[in-house]
Amino acid sequence: MKSEEQFLELIDTYFPRDHEFLKLGRGDDCAVLRGGKDYCVSSDIFLEDVHFRRTYFTAEDIGYKALAVNLSDIAAMGAKPVAFTMDLMAPADLDEEFWNGFFKSMSMLARQSDIALAGGDLSRADKLCVSITIYGVAGGSGEFITRGNCAPGDTLFTIGDLGLARAGFHTLEAFGEKGREVFPAAVRAHLRPKPKILIGTLLNAAGVKSLMDVSDGLARDLPRLLGPELGADLTIPASDLNGNVLAFSLGVGTDPVETAILGGEDYALLGAASPEILDKVSSVPGFTAVGTVTETPGLIVNGSPFETEGFDHFDS
Amino acid sequence: MKSEEQFLELIDTYFPRDHEFLKLGRGDDCAVLRGGKDYCVSSDIFLEDVHFRRTYFTAEDIGYKALAVNLSDIAAMGAKPVAFTMDLMAPADLDEEFWNGFFKSMSMLARQSDIALAGGDLSRADKLCVSITIYGVAGGSGEFITRGNCAPGDTLFTIGDLGLARAGFHTLEAFGEKGREVFPAAVRAHLRPKPKILIGTLLNAAGVKSLMDVSDGLARDLPRLLGPELGADLTIPASDLNGNVLAFSLGVGTDPVETAILGGEDYALLGAASPEILDKVSSVPGFTAVGTVTETPGLIVNGSPFETEGFDHFDS
Repeated sequence: MKSEEQFLELIDTYFPRDHEFLKLGRGDDCAVLRGGKDYCVSSDIFLEDVHFRRTYFTAEDIGYKALAVNLSDIAAMGAKPVAFTMDLMAPADLDEEFWNGFFKSMSMLARQSDIALAGGDLSRADKLCVSITIYGVAGGSGEFITRGNCAPGDTLFTIGDLGLARAGFHTLEAFGEKGREVFPAAVRAHLRPKPKILIGTLLNAAGVKSLMDVSDGLARDLPRLLGPELGADLTIPASDLNGNVLAFSLGVGTDPVETAILGGEDYALLGAASPEILDKVSSVPGFTAVGTVTETPGLIVNGSPFETEGFDHFDS
Repeated sequence: MKSEEQFLELIDTYFPRDHEFLKLGRGDDCAVLRGGKDYCVSSDIFLEDVHFRRTYFTAEDIGYKALAVNLSDIAAMGAKPVAFTMDLMAPADLDEEFWNGFFKSMSMLARQSDIALAGGDLSRADKLCVSITIYGVAGGSGEFITRGNCAPGDTLFTIGDLGLARAGFHTLEAFGEKGREVFPAAVRAHLRPKPKILIGTLLNAAGVKSLMDVSDGLARDLPRLLGPELGADLTIPASDLNGNVLAFSLGVGTDPVETAILGGEDYALLGAASPEILDKVSSVPGFTAVGTVTETPGLIVNGSPFETEGFDHFDS
């Protein structure tokens, strides 16, 4: 990739400029999102050697996951994504084959999600970094689902595997590419997390008022859902966890429930359902009850207080 | 700065969460921009050793300019900024004093521009990088000003100095901190470019239909304003240029008009005015006529064809 123009031409081959929610597509000083609806917005950094490694992520994996983690934030609002902007920092050693793989898988996910690339910026950099901002609109109800809004007695639930992506991450760190054969489901959960957009809109339609996505591990994220006044009593039987989480935990000698609760980057949805809507909510595919909201702050897991915290992006 | 929590607390001391255009402020999976209006959006990368150096940018300069370059894109739409999201990649060696300076000057500019920080993401990184996405709304007319919309005979105009920031950049590269004393105006133009938001809205009210900001130099940006079918006949007398551009060009032995036309990062506004609105437009403060739109593609500068192109972000 020699010039900026060539780069922009390549982007044009993969991403259409038009979308019903775009009054003006990319190519000007700004894009314009059509008015009328509230827009939810979220940004995520996807940085080489912090969030991924080029040694075991393919170009396709990187392009896919950079967008998927942003889509997950839209899913966590019970919303429908419409567009994204992308700031792309590109090392000079990446060739056209890399970028074709990167844009191909990103654009496939964009097409599946029916979203347009509305603009962005390009720069040379030492490390590959994708900084995406994504825009979504609410579904039928017109409401977004926020965090909070929990009450004692509400059922806490997750949709998506806990700890599986973390097991995949450690497997890839230990075995590199070969890790794909060791724990395929876990590795796939780390490389290709599935944004749960349809699930999010179903939860919204079912009346859920409290939802987030689990990106830093359940132990760290659940208090963010509950707020400082409430706690949770969780029941997470090891037998309910993915077989790869059990096998990985056995291999490294940790408690599989701890793996599940500390695991980051799950991109599972975590929510609370009041008794009145529980019937409806529990029929959403993948619904797994994991416990109950309590009046006392703190987490109880399988009968014992749970103290350790999840992942801190700034821990060194 | 030890933890992510500390970092977020520091951000909270500088940036309020509320804004009339924010239905939901930062702290959830997404922020929510209140519906009703079209939103223009733009993203810019501001990366250490590509867009700035820590050797001669203070923390305050970096925080200021990272936001200013984004505000300039909103100005170029003739729009009013309302909010921004920020992805911040932070090296571990930057201490609390640095971040206080960085956020203090960024938040001062945000307050002056009446915009809220709506959200973002944080990550450790080797190099400091600020990736901001900014949101704006149209003023009274309800219209944004795009590129294009030029016709032969329209007057081309700029508002803001050409080449001054480029002279400042080279001065700082050559003299470091000391450069501030050599060419103060030029250095200030590079470190602290003034986003021309009020000017943009005045141009919008005066009926301007074609506008952009000059970030890659007039020679490269003007064809983007004109589109492939049109050209320009420019008259840029050296005597009209800033004294620092003249002195710098004399010092390095280049033509000052070339310095002005090739200079990047001016964040001047560049637009076209049809004869009917020229009177109104020319009364906007800082208005400088630089030439006329022509039917033949290509640039004529002071009577001669101008060939050299401006800055390519990917040239190595």
